[in-house]
Amino acid sequence: MAKVKAFVFDAYGTLFDVHSVIEACNELFPRKGQQISEVWRHKQIEYSFLRQLMGRYCTFYEITRDSLRYACRSLEVDLSKEKEEQLLNEYLHLAHYAEVEEVLQKLQGKTVAIFSNGSYDMLQPLVENSTLSELFDAVLSVDEVKQYKPTPMSYSLVLERLDVKREEVLFMSSNTWDITGAKSFGFQTAWINRKGITEEELGISPDFEYKNLRGILEHI
Amino acid sequence: MAKVKAFVFDAYGTLFDVHSVIEACNELFPRKGQQISEVWRHKQIEYSFLRQLMGRYCTFYEITRDSLRYACRSLEVDLSKEKEEQLLNEYLHLAHYAEVEEVLQKLQGKTVAIFSNGSYDMLQPLVENSTLSELFDAVLSVDEVKQYKPTPMSYSLVLERLDVKREEVLFMSSNTWDITGAKSFGFQTAWINRKGITEEELGISPDFEYKNLRGILEHI
Repeated sequence: MAKVKAFVFDAYGTLFDVHSVIEACNELFPRKGQQISEVWRHKQIEYSFLRQLMGRYCTFYEITRDSLRYACRSLEVDLSKEKEEQLLNEYLHLAHYAEVEEVLQKLQGKTVAIFSNGSYDMLQPLVENSTLSELFDAVLSVDEVKQYKPTPMSYSLVLERLDVKREEVLFMSSNTWDITGAKSFGFQTAWINRKGITEEELGISPDFEYKNLRGILEHI
Repeated sequence: MAKVKAFVFDAYGTLFDVHSVIEACNELFPRKGQQISEVWRHKQIEYSFLRQLMGRYCTFYEITRDSLRYACRSLEVDLSKEKEEQLLNEYLHLAHYAEVEEVLQKLQGKTVAIFSNGSYDMLQPLVENSTLSELFDAVLSVDEVKQYKPTPMSYSLVLERLDVKREEVLFMSSNTWDITGAKSFGFQTAWINRKGITEEELGISPDFEYKNLRGILEHI
């Protein structure tokens, strides 16, 4: 395999725990936090797929808002404008997973980037509000090409911005659809399978699989 | 609204009940039938989206096989080659919903068609094995254009084959992603919301919503 020149990370679910919104959801909607969070995330991903397929791109911020609205309607809780803003604000303050900072520290000196479906209006505040902001060389959003992962065109942004060839990228994601799309595009891929879930049947396997991000340190 | 010149039906979930496989699943895998059927259907749809997004089209028959394999692995039941064939064969003998035959009878004299993600190797046997085969003027598969619903290109096949304009089509689907894609393309749309589920937050609403297919008879 080619030498890795850039370590590129998906954001949501890979570096940052989307389900860290549960606590805030529970405060506003007692005992419904986990359900809201699960439907919210599920629909967020589905809507990005569907808008891409239909050719109706809008920003991931809008998708995140719409999927929250869907979650609340489907679970029959009343989402006021104020509560909506409060919960969307949580998305700018997601917790990162325990090992993230340590792993990123050890990668310093290498090219390290985020590549996310998130639009810059949510991705940049998220990184700035964390303790990680100094640890990335680049924070890249599909919003620049208006195509959602896992289309090939979306991943091509990484090559353009980091000036690397596809096989020189080691891409990390916890999301099976993302790691499959990245491998299909031609990145080297490390699936961060935090929950030990079942591999997809899409005819494409990631190059590496780790329980958390510490596993990638063998590629330094 | 324009006069309806063609009544076009999605197949799976709209005319035919995909969950009629539960009984056969239960025979092979006691008490796991419903779970297998749910994961199977969920992954079948997801894989069609993902393959379309990644640009890795394969037939819906292959997707149906792969999603069944995923369902069995994730639920930790052992799918032998023989059991796989048996369950895939069930997909060629799905039950149609109770009102379907009566409604199609009443539409005779109009242009009536199926338009499905299913490839002909599964769609044609399904229709022929049912009591409905004489009731359609056309059975159309996205396999002709190698694009899955809900891309605009997929729906365009209907115009080409039935020689109608998009606004002259009344399209019926129970699947929210399908009815949204069809409306986005420009069909008139009737969402057959059999289970009373929540409408999506995709900024596009179907023109009509009915509990079952009888509702469309007001358009004759």
